[in-house]
Amino acid sequence: MKIAVDAMGGDWAPREIVKGAVQAAATLGARIILVGNPDQIAALETEVGLPAPGVEVIPAWQQVEMSDKPVYALRHKKESSLAVAAALVRNGDAGALVSAGNTGATMAFSLRNFGRLPGVDRPGIAIPMPTTRGYCMFIDGGANLEAKPRYLLQFAHMGSLYVQSVLGWKHPKVALLNVGSEPEKGTAVLQDAYKLLNASGLNFIGNIESRDILSGVADVVVTDGFSGNLILKFAEGLATALLDMLKTEIKQSGLGVQLGAYLTRPAFQNLKKRMNYEEYGGALLLGLNHPTVICHGSSRARAIFNAIRVAQESLSQDVTGKIADLMREEPEGSRENK
Amino acid sequence: MKIAVDAMGGDWAPREIVKGAVQAAATLGARIILVGNPDQIAALETEVGLPAPGVEVIPAWQQVEMSDKPVYALRHKKESSLAVAAALVRNGDAGALVSAGNTGATMAFSLRNFGRLPGVDRPGIAIPMPTTRGYCMFIDGGANLEAKPRYLLQFAHMGSLYVQSVLGWKHPKVALLNVGSEPEKGTAVLQDAYKLLNASGLNFIGNIESRDILSGVADVVVTDGFSGNLILKFAEGLATALLDMLKTEIKQSGLGVQLGAYLTRPAFQNLKKRMNYEEYGGALLLGLNHPTVICHGSSRARAIFNAIRVAQESLSQDVTGKIADLMREEPEGSRENK
Repeated sequence: MKIAVDAMGGDWAPREIVKGAVQAAATLGARIILVGNPDQIAALETEVGLPAPGVEVIPAWQQVEMSDKPVYALRHKKESSLAVAAALVRNGDAGALVSAGNTGATMAFSLRNFGRLPGVDRPGIAIPMPTTRGYCMFIDGGANLEAKPRYLLQFAHMGSLYVQSVLGWKHPKVALLNVGSEPEKGTAVLQDAYKLLNASGLNFIGNIESRDILSGVADVVVTDGFSGNLILKFAEGLATALLDMLKTEIKQSGLGVQLGAYLTRPAFQNLKKRMNYEEYGGALLLGLNHPTVICHGSSRARAIFNAIRVAQESLSQDVTGKIADLMREEPEGSRENK
Repeated sequence: MKIAVDAMGGDWAPREIVKGAVQAAATLGARIILVGNPDQIAALETEVGLPAPGVEVIPAWQQVEMSDKPVYALRHKKESSLAVAAALVRNGDAGALVSAGNTGATMAFSLRNFGRLPGVDRPGIAIPMPTTRGYCMFIDGGANLEAKPRYLLQFAHMGSLYVQSVLGWKHPKVALLNVGSEPEKGTAVLQDAYKLLNASGLNFIGNIESRDILSGVADVVVTDGFSGNLILKFAEGLATALLDMLKTEIKQSGLGVQLGAYLTRPAFQNLKKRMNYEEYGGALLLGLNHPTVICHGSSRARAIFNAIRVAQESLSQDVTGKIADLMREEPEGSRENK
């Protein structure tokens, strides 16, 4: 099954997108349809090694801007690379969509073109987050600002299934993000979600507080998209801020400290790599009829390569089919009006 | 005006609490009523330098445990150090309350004993958070899980007034924590709160995303207590996790890096000090008839000292009176049913 890649989305499009796609075709054996401005892509041919086996180009002359509202993009950007790529998936020419462009618009075109799986109330974005033990999967990372208990249950099922089938994690531990560990903590929505999760048959370890996310106690962290967005963006900001503050401290210190900072650089570089979203392959939108992988806007070739890997593994492991089966079984709670 | 200090609350009570109180009396000229088990306090006399001018001890034989539910504490811990200290404030024997004990119980006893100011719908916890430029004030840090637009407006007013009068910040910049900067971002509650804040006469700079908190663009960050709790606890967890990961990287590195790490220690220690909640004087519960300062459970003498400083400055600057005046003027929006 081919993967449709929006060549024009992201801060470094099309160069880095095309590079990542060519690498994925060469290394992973992925078959890619690059959708974008053919002149701009042609201009890169020598640099990136196009034409290449497994990579075809389909032209699109419009592009969605980062600042476009999703509704505006749906209406006025029907010839955009994103729109054309999503249509390829709808028509069966491709099995999955990858974009580093406008997140809201990518969700909107995915929903419009190939829609939700039956039984899924809301798609959720599964985003990997580094922990001291490796990483965990955050769902929902921002697709829906508010959640009903039933949505949170579905996020838990979809996230658990994803990390089992694509990442091979056995018996993933599922936790609900809350302000305390006791079942009665948090809002009414979270209290009800706790009950649903507890009766779900998932490996539910209960509520966790935000401070425990990073120690890696949970494999799948379930939350509404508002809280998910707050935490994910804050993690980005805090890591940067801490390093800035440390740099300031070092600059204000004596020569010994400055020499020490020079010597410790390799450790910092490894840490930075570990915290680097590029290694984790982007965010997977779960609950649609086909996988959509959303990359960070600042993605370089490495991140695009990893996103294509996630898309390909989602296809080969049939994550969509498995979620569909699961929803057909109507897990406990999804029948109730919650 | 005296300050009632719960000598039995916190992980290091009573030793560190008593030490901090004695230091505050000696250095700040604060007049303290220490409430707690008189035998345990007497046992510390030589070590901490009691009796001391400005410090009196009032006995209480019960104590609230960290695990006690607030309702349970209110009903069954009427002779506790916290209950007695709050009663001293109610009776006018003290002007403010300081506790490093159970946060929920401290709020509950404060509300029960000296209650909300007229016109304040919900008290909010103002918590200082370090930024790359200094620090900002987070409100609500966890007193109310859910907020109406009107509560958020009141938090903004109270927070702004507090940083102006106690910290001396001129024209504090107030921001609303949201998932995007545009006025129409976020939930319906946040959209309405944006309108109220925009019309409030405060120095409102609009919505900020969580990643921008730490760059110090805002002086007062307004949020509901659920989001506030998530962010504050996550910041704690992330700072610890990053240092853990860095330590692991350093251990796995060669001798050069390890020497470098040794040499950079002073910079890390300064950074740690800057991130240290103990320097910031605890969290102030705003909107009550008297100031209550809630300290971190792991507070040592230094943190207690700073908390007493905040309580004393709140009294001398009459923060409570100023908030009362403000609420009497019924700021725009608080009359509407929002």
